[in-house]
Amino acid sequence: MATMLLDELQKRLPPECIQVDADVIQAYSQDRAVFEVAGTASILVMPGSTAEVVAAVEAANAADVPIVPRGAGTGLTGAANAVDGCMVLSLHRMNQILEIDTTNRTCRVQPGVINADLKVAVAEHGLFYPPDPASVEISSIGGNVATNAGGLCCVKYGVTRDYVMGLEVVMASGEVMRTGRNTIKSTTGLDLTGLFVGSEGVLGLITEITLKLVTAPPPPATAVAYFDTLEPAGNAIIEIFKQGHEPSLMEIVDRASLRQVEAVYPMDLDVDAACLLLMQTSGEDASTRIAEISDICTANGATFVYHVDDPHEGDMLIEVRRKVWPAFEALGKALLPEDVAVPRERLPELLAGITDIAERNQVMLPTIGHAGDGNMHPLLVFDGNDAEEVARVKTAFGEIIGLALSLDGTIAGEHGVGTLKKQFIEDELDPIQLRVQRSMRTLLDPAGRLNPGKAL
Amino acid sequence: MATMLLDELQKRLPPECIQVDADVIQAYSQDRAVFEVAGTASILVMPGSTAEVVAAVEAANAADVPIVPRGAGTGLTGAANAVDGCMVLSLHRMNQILEIDTTNRTCRVQPGVINADLKVAVAEHGLFYPPDPASVEISSIGGNVATNAGGLCCVKYGVTRDYVMGLEVVMASGEVMRTGRNTIKSTTGLDLTGLFVGSEGVLGLITEITLKLVTAPPPPATAVAYFDTLEPAGNAIIEIFKQGHEPSLMEIVDRASLRQVEAVYPMDLDVDAACLLLMQTSGEDASTRIAEISDICTANGATFVYHVDDPHEGDMLIEVRRKVWPAFEALGKALLPEDVAVPRERLPELLAGITDIAERNQVMLPTIGHAGDGNMHPLLVFDGNDAEEVARVKTAFGEIIGLALSLDGTIAGEHGVGTLKKQFIEDELDPIQLRVQRSMRTLLDPAGRLNPGKAL
Repeated sequence: MATMLLDELQKRLPPECIQVDADVIQAYSQDRAVFEVAGTASILVMPGSTAEVVAAVEAANAADVPIVPRGAGTGLTGAANAVDGCMVLSLHRMNQILEIDTTNRTCRVQPGVINADLKVAVAEHGLFYPPDPASVEISSIGGNVATNAGGLCCVKYGVTRDYVMGLEVVMASGEVMRTGRNTIKSTTGLDLTGLFVGSEGVLGLITEITLKLVTAPPPPATAVAYFDTLEPAGNAIIEIFKQGHEPSLMEIVDRASLRQVEAVYPMDLDVDAACLLLMQTSGEDASTRIAEISDICTANGATFVYHVDDPHEGDMLIEVRRKVWPAFEALGKALLPEDVAVPRERLPELLAGITDIAERNQVMLPTIGHAGDGNMHPLLVFDGNDAEEVARVKTAFGEIIGLALSLDGTIAGEHGVGTLKKQFIEDELDPIQLRVQRSMRTLLDPAGRLNPGKAL
Repeated sequence: MATMLLDELQKRLPPECIQVDADVIQAYSQDRAVFEVAGTASILVMPGSTAEVVAAVEAANAADVPIVPRGAGTGLTGAANAVDGCMVLSLHRMNQILEIDTTNRTCRVQPGVINADLKVAVAEHGLFYPPDPASVEISSIGGNVATNAGGLCCVKYGVTRDYVMGLEVVMASGEVMRTGRNTIKSTTGLDLTGLFVGSEGVLGLITEITLKLVTAPPPPATAVAYFDTLEPAGNAIIEIFKQGHEPSLMEIVDRASLRQVEAVYPMDLDVDAACLLLMQTSGEDASTRIAEISDICTANGATFVYHVDDPHEGDMLIEVRRKVWPAFEALGKALLPEDVAVPRERLPELLAGITDIAERNQVMLPTIGHAGDGNMHPLLVFDGNDAEEVARVKTAFGEIIGLALSLDGTIAGEHGVGTLKKQFIEDELDPIQLRVQRSMRTLLDPAGRLNPGKAL
C-alpha cells in the first residue's frame, strides 16, 4: 500500500512534497492530545499549493489510502493523529498571507499561516483578527478554522466561525470548491462555509480562507477580584452581563491554580481565596466600564477588588492566568486539559461539581477557564506512569463531561472532539442530528478517506 | 390527490388545522414577490404545535404531495409561493414566545412570532433582538430565519444567522431534529444550525428557534449628509469604516428617491443632491462618534452635513428612508425591489451602473439601500399592464444582477433567492459548491417534497 501510494505521489508531485523518513513521519503523526495513541502513517505529504493538495488527494484515492490532514499539530483531541497506513497531509508549507484588504477589512490566507503572525500583519494596518486560542503563537489559521477555535477574547468578539467569510476546499474527490462571498451579506444558497468551520478535516481539506477583520480596539482596562467562595463569584459574573457590560476578557482561576502559580512564581496571590476573576474591557468607555464591573464584584461579596486603566499594569495582573499551565508543568507530571462549557449561570454548579469529582476520585484537578462564556478547562494533573492514577483520571474525565451535560452544557467548548471525546458525542447530540451529520460526511466523502475515526 | 391528502390530514389532525376553502387557500398561496406566479395549492394546513407539523408532513408523505411552508408571507422572492397541488403549511398559529432567559440573554420562540412583537417582549427585560428587516412589523421570526433576513442595523449588529443558536426542525421524513446548543460556545459536531438558516424551507420545517439577545443599546445619535455626486459619498463611506467607526445604521437615498419623497411628503429635502447619507451611531460614545463621522463626510466633499444627539430629532431625520416606498406606491405603479450587494468600495460603481441601466432601458429606477453593507435595493417602478415596459424592467433587473456579479457582488443580499432569482444562482455560485448544496438538499429530502423549485 505504502509503495503504491509513493508511486502515485511521485507521479504527481515534486520530491520536496514527499517525505518517507520514518522519524520525520512520526514527528508529524500526532497532535498534543493526552492518552490518544496515534497510528503509524505510511507517508507524509507537504503540499505547497492547492494544486499539490489536489495531486496528493488524487494519489491517495488511486492507492486507496486514508488521508489525515494537519495544521500545526497543536490540537488537544487527537483530531490530527495519524491512523495506520494513512497519508499525513501537512499544510504547514502553505503559510502565505495572500491579501489584506483594508477597505473591506478582510484578508485571504493560506491555512498554514500562524495565528500570531496574522495578528501582527493586520495590526500594521490598524486591524485586528480577534480569535486568540491559548496556542495563538504556534497554531495555524487552518487548524483554528478546522476546530472553530475560541480563546480569551471570544466573550466579546466571538469564535473563529464568526470571522470566516469564505473557503477554498479540496474535496475527497479531488475537486476544488469555493464557498462564501466577498460581500458582508449574502443570501444566495446554503451556508457551506459555516458547515466546514469546525469540521475537523472530515468534510474536505481547507486550502484558503477569507477572514473578516475588525478595527484594532484601544488598549483594555483591567480588573481583578478575589472571592472567598464560588457562589458570589458566579453571581458577580451573571450580574455583570445582566447590567449590559461586554467584557473583552473574563477569566477565572481557582484556588488550586492560585496556589500552584504562587508556589512556582511567587507574586503575592491570595492563596486562600476560592477563586480569582480577571476581567478586561475594551473600547472608548473601557475605563468607566471596568470601574462599574469592579463595583459589581464588590457588591456581590468580592473580598478584594482592584482595577487599572494602564494596559501594562493590566498585563501584569492577568499574567497569573498565563502562568497556570507552566506552573503545573513544573511538577513534571502529565496534564490533561478538559474543555466543557455550560450556560453562564450554571458555572458555580459546574465548579462545585468539579471539586467534588476531584475529591471523590482523589485526583489533582485545578480549574481555569473562560468564565464569561461558561467554558471551563479543568486540568487533570497526574503521573502518567501510575496506571492506577491514570484510571482514576479517566474516570474523573468522563464524570466532568457527564456533569457538564447534566447542566445543559457541551462536551467540547472550543477544542473539538477528535478521538478524545468521540465516545461522548452521542450523549450530547440529538440522535437524528448525529445521523444527519454522519450522512453529510458520507455524502462528501463516500470512501471514508478523510480523517477516518475522528470527530463524528 | 387532494382528496387523498385531505383524508390523510383528517386522520391525523383536528379540523381547525385544515382549511379547504379555495379563497382562504388562495390567500395563503403567495408571498409579495412581483412577477412570480404562484401555483394552485390543494389544501392549507395550519398546525398549532410541532406534533401537528409532524402529522401534516406524514400526511403529505402518505399522499405524495409537495409541501410549501410559509411564515407571514412577506417574502419578496416567491419562496413561499404555492406550487400546483401542494399542501401549503402555514406556521402563523405557532406564535408563542416560549422563554426569555435574562441571565443567558437568549430566548426560545415558535416560528410564527412577529419580529416586532419579539423586540417589544425582550425590551421589557432591557434586551434587544437586532435583526430589523423592513418588514419587521409584519414578518415572522421563522421567515426571517428561513431567509437569513437582514435590515438596517446589520451594519453593526449582523444578520439573522448571527443570532440563531439552535433550532427544532421537522424533517421531510417527519422526524424531529434538534440542532445547536444552550452554551455560548460549542465545538461538538457540525454546525447544522447555520446550514438551516437561510435555507428557504428546502431542508426542513423550522418549528422552534433559540435566539441570542444583546443588551439594549442607548438611543442612537444621528447624522445626515448630502453629496453632489456619488463618488465623494462612496469615499466618505469607505473612510468612515477605515477610521474604525461602527455605525449602527448607514443608509443611502438617491436623487430619484429624494425627489419622489419630496413630491409626496414635502420635507424640504435637497432634490438636487446626488444622494443623501443617513447615519446613526449607538453606544456610550455615540455623540463623539457621530461628530467624527460628520467631519469625515465634510472632509470628503459633502455639501451639507447635520448631526444630532436627540433620538427623536434623529428619528425625524431618517424618516425620509421610510417614506421612499410609500412615496413610490403613491404613483399607483408596480414596485419591484432589487437586492444586490457588492464589496463596500464598489458602491459608487454599482450606483453609477444602475443609473446607466435605468437610462439605457428607459426605466424608473430609484435606489436606496444599506450603504454600510454594500447592499442596495434599486426599485423598479413600472406599469405592470404595459407589456413593453415590463419587458424593459425584466431586462434591467437581469442587468443589475449581472452588474453586481461583475463587481464581485452577490445576487441576493438579504431577501433570498426563491423563484425570482433561481435562474441566476449558477452565475454566482461555484458549480461544485452548487452541486454539493443540491446533493445535501436531496440527502435531507430524497422525494423533493419540501418547497420544490425554490432556492437552489
